Amino acid sequence: MANPPQAPRGMRDFLPDRMILRHHVTGVFRGVFERYGFEPLDTPAVEYAETLEGKYGEEADKLIYKFEDRGGRRVGLRYDLTVPLARVVAQYPDLPKPFKRYQIAPVWRAERPQKGRYREFWQCDADTVGSTSMLADAEILAVVYTALRELGFPQFVMRLNNRKILKGVAAFAGVPEGEEASVLRSVDKLDKVGEVGVRTELLEKGFGEDVVGRLFELLAPEASGDVLARLRTQLVDNAEAQDGIGELEQVREYLGALGVPEAFCRIDLAMVRGLDYYTGPIFETVVEEPRIGSITGGGRYDHLIGIFSGRDIPAVGSTLGLERIVDVMEALGLFPAAKTLTRVLVTVFDTAAAPESLRLAAELRAAGVCAEVYLAEKGGFRKQLAYANAKGIPLVALLGPDEIARREVTLRNMADGSQESVARGEVVGRLRGEVVGRLRG
Amino acid sequence: MANPPQAPRGMRDFLPDRMILRHHVTGVFRGVFERYGFEPLDTPAVEYAETLEGKYGEEADKLIYKFEDRGGRRVGLRYDLTVPLARVVAQYPDLPKPFKRYQIAPVWRAERPQKGRYREFWQCDADTVGSTSMLADAEILAVVYTALRELGFPQFVMRLNNRKILKGVAAFAGVPEGEEASVLRSVDKLDKVGEVGVRTELLEKGFGEDVVGRLFELLAPEASGDVLARLRTQLVDNAEAQDGIGELEQVREYLGALGVPEAFCRIDLAMVRGLDYYTGPIFETVVEEPRIGSITGGGRYDHLIGIFSGRDIPAVGSTLGLERIVDVMEALGLFPAAKTLTRVLVTVFDTAAAPESLRLAAELRAAGVCAEVYLAEKGGFRKQLAYANAKGIPLVALLGPDEIARREVTLRNMADGSQESVARGEVVGRLRGEVVGRLRG
Repeated sequence: MANPPQAPRGMRDFLPDRMILRHHVTGVFRGVFERYGFEPLDTPAVEYAETLEGKYGEEADKLIYKFEDRGGRRVGLRYDLTVPLARVVAQYPDLPKPFKRYQIAPVWRAERPQKGRYREFWQCDADTVGSTSMLADAEILAVVYTALRELGFPQFVMRLNNRKILKGVAAFAGVPEGEEASVLRSVDKLDKVGEVGVRTELLEKGFGEDVVGRLFELLAPEASGDVLARLRTQLVDNAEAQDGIGELEQVREYLGALGVPEAFCRIDLAMVRGLDYYTGPIFETVVEEPRIGSITGGGRYDHLIGIFSGRDIPAVGSTLGLERIVDVMEALGLFPAAKTLTRVLVTVFDTAAAPESLRLAAELRAAGVCAEVYLAEKGGFRKQLAYANAKGIPLVALLGPDEIARREVTLRNMADGSQESVARGEVVGRLRGEVVGRLRG
Repeated sequence: MANPPQAPRGMRDFLPDRMILRHHVTGVFRGVFERYGFEPLDTPAVEYAETLEGKYGEEADKLIYKFEDRGGRRVGLRYDLTVPLARVVAQYPDLPKPFKRYQIAPVWRAERPQKGRYREFWQCDADTVGSTSMLADAEILAVVYTALRELGFPQFVMRLNNRKILKGVAAFAGVPEGEEASVLRSVDKLDKVGEVGVRTELLEKGFGEDVVGRLFELLAPEASGDVLARLRTQLVDNAEAQDGIGELEQVREYLGALGVPEAFCRIDLAMVRGLDYYTGPIFETVVEEPRIGSITGGGRYDHLIGIFSGRDIPAVGSTLGLERIVDVMEALGLFPAAKTLTRVLVTVFDTAAAPESLRLAAELRAAGVCAEVYLAEKGGFRKQLAYANAKGIPLVALLGPDEIARREVTLRNMADGSQESVARGEVVGRLRGEVVGRLRG
């Protein structure tokens, strides 16, 4: 094995400097989820293949990693966290409802790897199962808003739409029954290929000029005024669309009461979301800069759980995409600069002096300070300072024979090389303050 | 799909009441790891098959889940966190050394499922790569000690041994070269089958009465006195054993300086640890009650990374077994009683009153209180109280038309059913205190 082996294609190691950032983000998510009453759930990485198949749409099904279990049962790696949730709700019918859970975990998709697309990536999901109320939908959006604000995002837009409205629009435009999905798949590409591209694709699919024209008339973004009020009038005869419009109006009202400013939300009729299983409100979050696609996505899926449990149980939720959120935060400079969590390196002079260093480190740790001891009984202080420097540790506590004899410690600030002597008994008190400002998930 | 699908055989869902306990434990681990200067690492669940194969021993290799990647490459699910670490160290040769990382993640083994044995389970590992010093070994043991004490374990024993001593003992007892591994595998069963069982097995394997007799003489636990001092004399001519004895003596000294009491450590010459790759000190932790096997296990493995990198890089580390630790803590009653993290449920009277409830919940959350809003605009207070009761939420904030008119909230204590009226403006201040004492990872 001469060439060192690599992580598998399309999958990544997260070295400590990256993991510190990821922990910071997931720590904020956990805090927000829990304050909103969502509780942690974990499910196996592996599910029976029949649990996964037929839930995401044909194209997605091809991307599920499948293999045989020991007993010859067909299994697969989970593709998202929503289908496992649906399976859990069906498997444990006695869970009190509404059941509000969050899950932060990796998922696997056998995609062709490319920039920003990986075969293993993490999702952070919050979902509410068992409520048809728009209180639940608004709460999910408030969770997304609170989490992104707490991470320091200055601006973003949560786009809202409703599958019921989209179906109403398709019907009103004259799309034949059963072909809405095909139309929506094309409309979904608006961001990528523009209006001309979508028009062309729809015409190529065989839809008439008149149908396509009416579609774009209805879906056009509003220059001013309220898009929902306009649609109410236009789709007056379509009960399902009226229902969907009412849902979004209620979501807007509840969002206001939850303290989510209007500037962060926008009704976007051309926003479709790819997955098959959505049935009501759908939402995603985008940032202007950097242009990276949606950083969160979700919606209401009132029939998915019924596939497993035999009776429909309503549900709504959202994914926060860890990878993209970390990327955007880096681009926007939203992370505190820290290569390491360790605040101080305690030097080791030699074997005889090592216990003194260990005692100092033990006291620092007991006081909550992240402290390393240099892990060799020889090597010289120069080498130890170079280690602190390479790791980005901001402080070094030098403990040589002179210091030990004088009951002192020499504290060296690695940023500017300044040093000062501190009485041994005062070191812990001095360094306790160093804990503040650290990244912590 | 009439019967609800299940989690795959041997794998488990962790519902919120279990996850809250697991988060509590992993949160303590993370805190301890980071205070000792270990930093987070994450690696893919999937590794190339050749990375995993041939590292754990023949029996273990059969338990690796393997399948083919899209491109036809043979891959497998990771079997532990140590081999992926070794691969990472080889793949990124520029990582500053010593490289101290922790990883908390699931691993997969195609075992026959039985009580306490699962096909997916979590390991919590801390390892130091790049130090030959016993400072590193002692530090790993101090991490284990600190983590278990912080979780509230009143008593446990960290058993220490050294593969170098075991090899010396085998040589001294007259075990033919190349057959030490077979002897050690039998000795490893001492806890399970007792001395008679091990003697029988060794005799059946063809070792002579005299060899087996000498072996047990050397490995016998010490009634009194220092086992290492005794061995120093007995194995005076065996350089490797002398080396191993010196290592354990140094580990003991450093543990003292790190504040680990002697009562928590014991030299146990019959403790072997199963894995092939250990080369020096080995350690595991056991509790007297409940008898559940080892709850941590680890040691020094100075050659494993060399398999990947082409040159030996020393390393030492330990796994803390999340599942067994949670089981022991439950048996010992070490968990605070809490089915939920949510402290208060805010009721919803009807659609018109819902925004008032949302505003109160938003204020509570902003103050750090985990607060749920009942997610339906109808249902009556009785149903909402039943929900709080089923979930184990300790407080309910009742907000009906009367309360809203009077600018008050009725706070109900679910434990005893007592209620009191609190001015709306004072509710948040009153409930802020409710945050303390919660479980949090």
